[in-house]
Amino acid sequence: MSERYLEDYAVGEVLKPTGRVRVEKAAIIAFAKEFDPQPFHLDEDAGRKSLFGGLVASGWHTAAMTMRLVAGSEYKPAGGSIGLGFDQLRWPLPVRPGDELHIETEVLEVRTSKSRPDRGLVKLRTQTINQNGEMVQELIGTALVPRRPGSKREPA
Amino acid sequence: MSERYLEDYAVGEVLKPTGRVRVEKAAIIAFAKEFDPQPFHLDEDAGRKSLFGGLVASGWHTAAMTMRLVAGSEYKPAGGSIGLGFDQLRWPLPVRPGDELHIETEVLEVRTSKSRPDRGLVKLRTQTINQNGEMVQELIGTALVPRRPGSKREPA
Repeated sequence: MSERYLEDYAVGEVLKPTGRVRVEKAAIIAFAKEFDPQPFHLDEDAGRKSLFGGLVASGWHTAAMTMRLVAGSEYKPAGGSIGLGFDQLRWPLPVRPGDELHIETEVLEVRTSKSRPDRGLVKLRTQTINQNGEMVQELIGTALVPRRPGSKREPA
Repeated sequence: MSERYLEDYAVGEVLKPTGRVRVEKAAIIAFAKEFDPQPFHLDEDAGRKSLFGGLVASGWHTAAMTMRLVAGSEYKPAGGSIGLGFDQLRWPLPVRPGDELHIETEVLEVRTSKSRPDRGLVKLRTQTINQNGEMVQELIGTALVPRRPGSKREPA
């Protein structure tokens, strides 16, 4: 699929899952060493003794892997995925070594920018889901999306 | 400073900035290759042609660097920084190569958990600020913090 403009998003549309990412233990530890060096992200034993009961990925690692899935999806806004802000980011369940994640994205809102009529705002809910169908991250936010050049009609 | 319990947080308190992180161009590109492979995060030229006018860090990279600063601060909750969820995450300005970031955190709310009286919830606002004093990320969220063992009194 080619790049999407504002006119190509419809409220209620569910963007089909695209790629998957397998979460390797080594990747969990490498991310934690660089960005979130807490015992339960670094070491199996420490994880077992924590309230997680095992080694778990940093939530920020889950967020970054989710971005990888968003960037690799077929639903790229023209000009790139530019997040303006998020109203919700939560991690209801931890991500563990061997998990396989995919995303599911729903379009919540589509509107033209008041200050810049050549672009618009698309509000999206992106769930990150593991191999058991459990949601491990929920992200609700608004992305900047250009209108189709020359477009006159209002977006759907 | 030793680990903090719920009783050690007071509403309105501003936790002093601790470490700083210098954002290297190579680190921006390495993070982008792994998690957010969009042209304006990968390549100077592509950045110049984008609405950012130059190479910029992925917002998720800024979030991860912020977590590094949080984890390295002197204000560690006992048992680790366990984020339950965020009400706000935004990137009002991009982060560019050579920027130097620090954080400033304010305590917005402190309360005991209703379901688990041995722990509590601390709502925090963490600003990530560059070398010019400009806010590049605002994060408002709630962390799980244990009460001091044997504590009977209500938190401040």
